[in-house]
Amino acid sequence: MTGTVYLVGAGPGAADLLTLRAARLLSEADVVLHDALVGAEILALAPQARIYNVGKRANRPSVDQRLICRLLVRLAERHRVVVRLKGGDPNLFGRASEEVAACRVAGVPVVTVPGVSAGFAAAASVGTSLTSRGVSRSVAFVTPSVGHGDARNAHWAEAAAAAETAVIYMGAIHAEYVVEELLASGVQRRRPVAVVESASTANERVLRGVLCDLPELVAELGDGPAVIIVGEVAALADALPLAAVSAA
Amino acid sequence: MTGTVYLVGAGPGAADLLTLRAARLLSEADVVLHDALVGAEILALAPQARIYNVGKRANRPSVDQRLICRLLVRLAERHRVVVRLKGGDPNLFGRASEEVAACRVAGVPVVTVPGVSAGFAAAASVGTSLTSRGVSRSVAFVTPSVGHGDARNAHWAEAAAAAETAVIYMGAIHAEYVVEELLASGVQRRRPVAVVESASTANERVLRGVLCDLPELVAELGDGPAVIIVGEVAALADALPLAAVSAA
Repeated sequence: MTGTVYLVGAGPGAADLLTLRAARLLSEADVVLHDALVGAEILALAPQARIYNVGKRANRPSVDQRLICRLLVRLAERHRVVVRLKGGDPNLFGRASEEVAACRVAGVPVVTVPGVSAGFAAAASVGTSLTSRGVSRSVAFVTPSVGHGDARNAHWAEAAAAAETAVIYMGAIHAEYVVEELLASGVQRRRPVAVVESASTANERVLRGVLCDLPELVAELGDGPAVIIVGEVAALADALPLAAVSAA
Repeated sequence: MTGTVYLVGAGPGAADLLTLRAARLLSEADVVLHDALVGAEILALAPQARIYNVGKRANRPSVDQRLICRLLVRLAERHRVVVRLKGGDPNLFGRASEEVAACRVAGVPVVTVPGVSAGFAAAASVGTSLTSRGVSRSVAFVTPSVGHGDARNAHWAEAAAAAETAVIYMGAIHAEYVVEELLASGVQRRRPVAVVESASTANERVLRGVLCDLPELVAELGDGPAVIIVGEVAALADALPLAAVSAA
C-alpha cells in the first residue's frame, strides 16, 4: 500500500485561519509531520494521528531536510494519509519543492493544500492593504535568510526595492543587514515600515516606524516569527481613524 | 446599534479553501456582500443572510466602488454581522483600503479576515513552489490592470522583472501588453510561464509554455479568472515525475 502525502498550509498561527480542507485532512490523518511554528491548538485537530515535530528554527538545531524527505516517503509506505503541516502556505518559503520532488521520485502521490501566508495575516493586523489604488499595485515577498544550497544573495533586496510594497519574511533577526541592503538598492531611509510578530496569535505585536528605525523596532520583539512590511501602505492605516481591529 | 463589517477572504474558489473563521462568520452573517468570483457553494454557508452580489468583472457593468462603501456603512447601522466577501485575500488587489477607510470614517468597526490568494492555489495546481532553494527567493505579486484613480502604470513590470518569480493577476486579458512590458523590463523571451485559470475549482485549467507564447496560451482559456506565473519555478514541476496532483 502507498498512502498520499499532503503538504498542507497551516496558516499564519491562529487555529481558525486553517482552511476547511486542512482541518478535514488533519481529522483523517494517520501521521502528521509539523514545523515548529504550528501550535498545539492546530495539532489537536488531528486526534488520531501520530505527531512528529520536525521543526526548523533559525539558529537552533533542526531536523535535516533530507531526513524529512526520506521520512515522508517511508511513512507513506505504511500509512494512508500523511500530512506534512507547514506554517503559512507550503509554496512560499516552505521548501515544498524538495519534499514534492522526493515523493515523486519515490512514486508517492503528493498533493499541496494552499494556506494563508503570514504576510496576509500581518497586513490584516496592521489594518492596511498590501495594494491600494494610486499607492501600490505590486508586492514583493522576499527573504534575506540564506540556507544551504542557496548561492544567490543580493537579488532579494532589488526585488523588494522594485515593488511598491515589500513583505520581508525571516528578516527581523537580520534587521541591520536588511536596512543596509534596501538602502543600497535605492529605498528611502524614511520609507514607512510595519513589523508584525506572531501575526494572528495571542502573542501578536504590531510596531510601526520608518526603515532606518528598523533595528530599534525589532529590538522590542520577542522570539516569535516576524514579518516586515515596507512601503507607503504601511503608513495608510495610521492616516485613518482606527475604529476597531480586534478579532470577533 | 452599530454592527461590525468583516472584510473576509473567500479564498481562490474551492469552498473548502475558505478558512474556518470565514466559514463561522458566514454562518453568523446577517448580510453578505460578495464579489462576482464567489461561488454558490460558498454563499450556501450563509443560509440566514441577505445576499448582495456587488461583483466587478473586467469589461462588464459593475457596482460603483463608492456605492459599495456607502452600502457597507448603511448596512452596519442596521445589522450586527455584515460580511464583505472578497475573492482570495482582501488585502491583495481587493480594494480593501477604500472600504476600510469608509467604515472608519463613519465610525463602523471593521475587521479583516485573511484568505488564500489565487496565486497560492495556482502554484499548488501547477505543482510548483513559488520559491525554491537556489532558484528563487523573491516573488512579486503584480497586476497590469489599471483602474480609476490609478495614475501609475509601468512599475508593475519592473517589479515583476526584478523578482525571481512573478505572479500576475488580471493579466490574461492583456497578454500581449504583458509580454511587451516584461520584455522591455529585461525578462527573457524563453522564461518559463504557467497559466492557471479558475485555480482550485472544477473548471481549473493549467497551461505551460514560455513568455513569448503567452498570447497563444491565453487564447485557449475560457472566461474564468487567470493567474500567470513567470519564472524558473514554472518549469520545475515539468522536470519531476508527476505521481498525482489531484485533490483528495
